[in-house]
Amino acid sequence: MTSTAESPLFEILTAAKRASTALASLSPAQRQEVIERMAFFIDRRVDEILSANKHDMQRAAKLLETGEISRSMYDRLKLDENKLKTIVEGVRQVSTLPDPVGAISLARELDDGLKLYRVTSPIGVIAVIFESRPDVLPQIASLAIRSGNVAILKGGKEARFTLTVLFECLQQALGEKGLPSQSLVLLHKREEIESILKADGLVDLIIPRGSNQLVRYVQDNTRIPVLGHAEGLCALYVHEDADIDMAVKLAVDAKVQYPAACNAIETLLVHSTIAGAYLPKVAQALFAKGVELRADNRAFEIIESEPGAPEAGSESKKFPLLVRSKSEDWTTEFSDLILAVKVVDSIEEAIDHINQHGSNHTDTIVTAEPATYEAFFKAVNSAGVYWNVSTRFADGFRYGFGAEVGISTNKMHPRGPVGLEGLVTYKYKLAGKGHVVEDYSGENARQFKHRDIDL
Amino acid sequence: MTSTAESPLFEILTAAKRASTALASLSPAQRQEVIERMAFFIDRRVDEILSANKHDMQRAAKLLETGEISRSMYDRLKLDENKLKTIVEGVRQVSTLPDPVGAISLARELDDGLKLYRVTSPIGVIAVIFESRPDVLPQIASLAIRSGNVAILKGGKEARFTLTVLFECLQQALGEKGLPSQSLVLLHKREEIESILKADGLVDLIIPRGSNQLVRYVQDNTRIPVLGHAEGLCALYVHEDADIDMAVKLAVDAKVQYPAACNAIETLLVHSTIAGAYLPKVAQALFAKGVELRADNRAFEIIESEPGAPEAGSESKKFPLLVRSKSEDWTTEFSDLILAVKVVDSIEEAIDHINQHGSNHTDTIVTAEPATYEAFFKAVNSAGVYWNVSTRFADGFRYGFGAEVGISTNKMHPRGPVGLEGLVTYKYKLAGKGHVVEDYSGENARQFKHRDIDL
Repeated sequence: MTSTAESPLFEILTAAKRASTALASLSPAQRQEVIERMAFFIDRRVDEILSANKHDMQRAAKLLETGEISRSMYDRLKLDENKLKTIVEGVRQVSTLPDPVGAISLARELDDGLKLYRVTSPIGVIAVIFESRPDVLPQIASLAIRSGNVAILKGGKEARFTLTVLFECLQQALGEKGLPSQSLVLLHKREEIESILKADGLVDLIIPRGSNQLVRYVQDNTRIPVLGHAEGLCALYVHEDADIDMAVKLAVDAKVQYPAACNAIETLLVHSTIAGAYLPKVAQALFAKGVELRADNRAFEIIESEPGAPEAGSESKKFPLLVRSKSEDWTTEFSDLILAVKVVDSIEEAIDHINQHGSNHTDTIVTAEPATYEAFFKAVNSAGVYWNVSTRFADGFRYGFGAEVGISTNKMHPRGPVGLEGLVTYKYKLAGKGHVVEDYSGENARQFKHRDIDL
Repeated sequence: MTSTAESPLFEILTAAKRASTALASLSPAQRQEVIERMAFFIDRRVDEILSANKHDMQRAAKLLETGEISRSMYDRLKLDENKLKTIVEGVRQVSTLPDPVGAISLARELDDGLKLYRVTSPIGVIAVIFESRPDVLPQIASLAIRSGNVAILKGGKEARFTLTVLFECLQQALGEKGLPSQSLVLLHKREEIESILKADGLVDLIIPRGSNQLVRYVQDNTRIPVLGHAEGLCALYVHEDADIDMAVKLAVDAKVQYPAACNAIETLLVHSTIAGAYLPKVAQALFAKGVELRADNRAFEIIESEPGAPEAGSESKKFPLLVRSKSEDWTTEFSDLILAVKVVDSIEEAIDHINQHGSNHTDTIVTAEPATYEAFFKAVNSAGVYWNVSTRFADGFRYGFGAEVGISTNKMHPRGPVGLEGLVTYKYKLAGKGHVVEDYSGENARQFKHRDIDL
């Protein structure tokens, strides 16, 4: 097992980089076998893992009392037999997914005997910084190894005992298959995050999974590419021709089903033509679920014009949960039962609002017309651009990726939910018979043929 | 035409971001037409462009005298009728390339009526910082518009007059097709680079094309993704079973054909078994071309043991161009007729040297054995990993991409020579009939079907 207690991090990261060469050289079957053995060892040591988790929970209970960790962190820390079974199944599933390495996306003969291929390949060394949830460790470790990457895993100290036993199971699998132990590295100290952020040349990708503050801190303090998102500011736009009942159902699901999720909506945009019919209905449904609406003036007046309950709100005379929006509401991720509502006069205004204020995560339109959706899809530059669907579907499991390491709001690849395919890059393979560039230069230069090769 | 003289850059970049929505909404044919008209207007104004270029050359001649610009910058500034013809042809060719937008790389029915597609899409706003060569402007502008992206182009002041006329031609095409003028923006002031580096949220990608210093400065001072490479440190490895004549020919081409290119080799690694036979031959060929060899001790002794010329070098008693390597030679991009040479005892040692000291650009192996190449390909994590071929083939035109905006040594996409395909990202399209996540949660949760859809 890799311990960082005595050795400086530089040596560990250098060894991890070397280990990435060994991992990249494995066959798909070898990578699959390691994952299967990981599942096997976790399954065999369930009692030990649960007992370590009990220990963590006892310490966490004290941290909860003193306010050092939140209730939701405390809840997410807990493992039981069922949850562990799901973890083992999850790891096994990663071994059954299609291999992401070695796929050819371009094959071209540049000239006689000079063949070019673009082939997917592991990225190298991936560092993942996460909090609380111990199930993240086997999930990320299995995705990383399956895609031929080394994973440096920095967990939260509140999960230390649980993570240590889980990590031992993963190391048993590596050892049994003769892989370098530094193929997976577990770190515990907060200070070690600094060393990772500075390790360009050794670490190829950083995935922070945690608070918006953590993600922003990582983005601001490293030259290494960062995968993930600081904010999930998603919008639902109800076009003039929308099916009103569907649009109500979608708004409720996208806001209420799990308000803390990054793919929950924070903004509801409604076309002015349909606002009079739609807003009172959706307001009623959302108020019933305890959602506070921060409405722009036009939306406010429409909702307020309906017969309401006798209790007065702070601003509305009829609805305690109806307030007037402030400008910062359009750029705030509430992560709570709060929704900003705005009336727009055209789809262009909706698109402009989303592209200016959104976070390029996931946005959805409700419309009956395919051409309207196509225009929305082309113009909105977010990782997910949906049609008549709740934004909450933005998730690696729901997309059928088996699992995800995170959701990327980057404009560049990988984008959206990132599973195995997002954990590989590509290399160009060029094979010749002594071809030199000199022959293709100057007078009487040989011409390239650029014939595509059938795969 | 967009002028930045009076308006602050923020407003221009905001307008450029808006223009990117308009560009993303164009059909492939519309994007093609704009490019064709760009070629037309450049062709029509050849005389004017040449006269502006003459003006720039006169000013540059003075800068050359005072040492403010280098000879190579001066040479690259010059346009003539033939060069302009090539530029026009290059732009026309971009309009004939396959469309990079709208390609579907994943199509899956998640459940009845709930369909997921991954579709290539424009990135948004791309800023390109370049020096001297005015032909870069129409090349990058045409690649950007063809891929649906806005380009912010910051040229060198030495090319100001030429760029201004070329840019007017591009703007004529935009205007004729009714596109926002901010679809292409030309900047001239050095200070404006600062504003671009700080414009995250408005600029999606920065491509610095210039000195290593410029690239590193950009990488160190922005949160925006940077495409390109600060260094091109390429290696050629001669395995024990290599065809010696082929390996000599490849080393000469890769070093001598254009030593200042990023894809020229800086390091020659030779297996010890073949070193005695290969090194004297390659040294002779390289000395004949004026290449200085910085050899490690084993390589030095082998070359020195051959009969040589009577003139003494500084270290070698026989060859003036033979010197002993220093440790910094393994990490220096000479960009000149200098080559570091090292004897290794195994392919593993060669791979380790390349992964530790190289710049992940392009590396090549000379070997007779396909399995040896496969091992090299898997283990070396560079954008190009070649077999029996000169590294100098790493180039968008040679790959058949039509043109390139640069060569990326990033580990993440896009990697290697970047043409149209590298200038798009993807979005997830999810279309349903009012599907909500709630139905797939809790007890009696609906199960996903995840059926792949035939394209």
